[in-house]
Amino acid sequence: MRIIRSIKKMSELSLRIRTKGKSTGFVPTMGALHQGHLRLIRQARKENKVVVVSVFVNPTQFGRGEDFKKYPRDLKRDARLCIKEGVDMIFYPSAKEMYPNNYRTYITVEELSDVLCGKFRPGHFKGVATVVAKLFNIVQPDIAYFGQKDAQQAIIIKKMVEDLNMPVRIKVMPTLRENNGLALSSRNAYLNKEERKQAHTLYQALNLARHLIRQGNINSSDIARKMRQLIAKKKSARIQYVSIVNLKNLKPTDKIKDRVLIALAVFIGKTRMIDNIIVNPKLYG
Amino acid sequence: MRIIRSIKKMSELSLRIRTKGKSTGFVPTMGALHQGHLRLIRQARKENKVVVVSVFVNPTQFGRGEDFKKYPRDLKRDARLCIKEGVDMIFYPSAKEMYPNNYRTYITVEELSDVLCGKFRPGHFKGVATVVAKLFNIVQPDIAYFGQKDAQQAIIIKKMVEDLNMPVRIKVMPTLRENNGLALSSRNAYLNKEERKQAHTLYQALNLARHLIRQGNINSSDIARKMRQLIAKKKSARIQYVSIVNLKNLKPTDKIKDRVLIALAVFIGKTRMIDNIIVNPKLYG
Repeated sequence: MRIIRSIKKMSELSLRIRTKGKSTGFVPTMGALHQGHLRLIRQARKENKVVVVSVFVNPTQFGRGEDFKKYPRDLKRDARLCIKEGVDMIFYPSAKEMYPNNYRTYITVEELSDVLCGKFRPGHFKGVATVVAKLFNIVQPDIAYFGQKDAQQAIIIKKMVEDLNMPVRIKVMPTLRENNGLALSSRNAYLNKEERKQAHTLYQALNLARHLIRQGNINSSDIARKMRQLIAKKKSARIQYVSIVNLKNLKPTDKIKDRVLIALAVFIGKTRMIDNIIVNPKLYG
Repeated sequence: MRIIRSIKKMSELSLRIRTKGKSTGFVPTMGALHQGHLRLIRQARKENKVVVVSVFVNPTQFGRGEDFKKYPRDLKRDARLCIKEGVDMIFYPSAKEMYPNNYRTYITVEELSDVLCGKFRPGHFKGVATVVAKLFNIVQPDIAYFGQKDAQQAIIIKKMVEDLNMPVRIKVMPTLRENNGLALSSRNAYLNKEERKQAHTLYQALNLARHLIRQGNINSSDIARKMRQLIAKKKSARIQYVSIVNLKNLKPTDKIKDRVLIALAVFIGKTRMIDNIIVNPKLYG
């Protein structure tokens, strides 16, 4: 497995691979790989000749006071895991390489970027869309793999790819969870033992919503209120948002009639955690 | 020569061409082709296996009250010219095909887009950058050709390509001019006979600037003032801007010490015309 730090080198390799007609599967990550990432890598391995993983903690998607500096970094461990999974290349550029001093170009996916997490992390999805476009141009993948845990990110990237006619397919793989339902995330490393227990409240709340819809409750605000009440019972939990939105346009739904994204962000202690599920009320109609 | 209207079809062809390792030269246009365009096409023909010309009057780069509706359109004539030049494909999508109803994604090249023409045409270069990125993703060219007449556009596109790591080379070809110096432009068709004569004042003013710099004048505001005075002599001329800026960052220069872009926009009657030259004072030092 090769670790490539230079954009120029990676671009040359990508072009050569593409010209040979070999398909490339790409898993963009910020490193600190967990089983959720490995699930994406395995899928990429299954479906492509060449598998590229990028490891880049992207500064432009972090806001002031967010955890850019303390975000976990361990390339050696990530590389070991990638070798085990049969990854061909890790693309590992520096921030300077990706954003030189006179950097000026940004991509915005309007509307979709201003709701849910975007409301509380202004500029976050602009940073995400921009870096993903850059990575796609450098790696030239046929298929790129994302996790459903970052649901809004996946929806925005799909929209960007569709709108800008990028020649890449996006595959979104299910969220992996610990036994108690806690969604796997590199940020789980920030939690202490007690917080880790309490963090399970996010998934509990999502399950409560599913349960209520299954029972025929289609009232979004009633369901969200009950979710909030459940979460409020945990001492270390502070809700940022609980939202039930249309899966396509991320607009709030009043009555749940079609597939919805139920998403939430909750601070557990000082750690901001997100989770989501998709529920189709018609399945229970 | 094929005329392709569908994005899907064009993307498939581009991918096939790229996989075969054939180089594609691409000339994006808004149609109403003139000798300036043909100069780009000939260069593309010389340097590539496959030549693609796009003809698309891009609605997102026109502001309110601008000439989107009356912009000259004549596909038959354009196609005849392209056939003569040995073009392989014209990509001719509809506005609906390029911007479906729920379109949301835009590219901004910050700072460079807010000066010169961008100051008077807000959103213009956002529209340009976005459509060019879309076209690049659809056509997948190795080299794309632009005219120096739209200097700011060329600089912005080069910056976008560099920043987003797009796998394409940009070539900028010199402005072609009529005998009296009037830069070729599809919009010259709007001018009546008398206006056409007066429009030559743009190039006269640029030449005056070059002459003054050659004589050792390095005072931007003095030079710009003299250019304005010259243009003001023409009855049908109304100046929008006359600017002398650093060629790289498009920031105003006070003393001209390095290569500068001297650019201007002048209404001749109701028609907005632009022109520019690059002057290197060191050549005359």
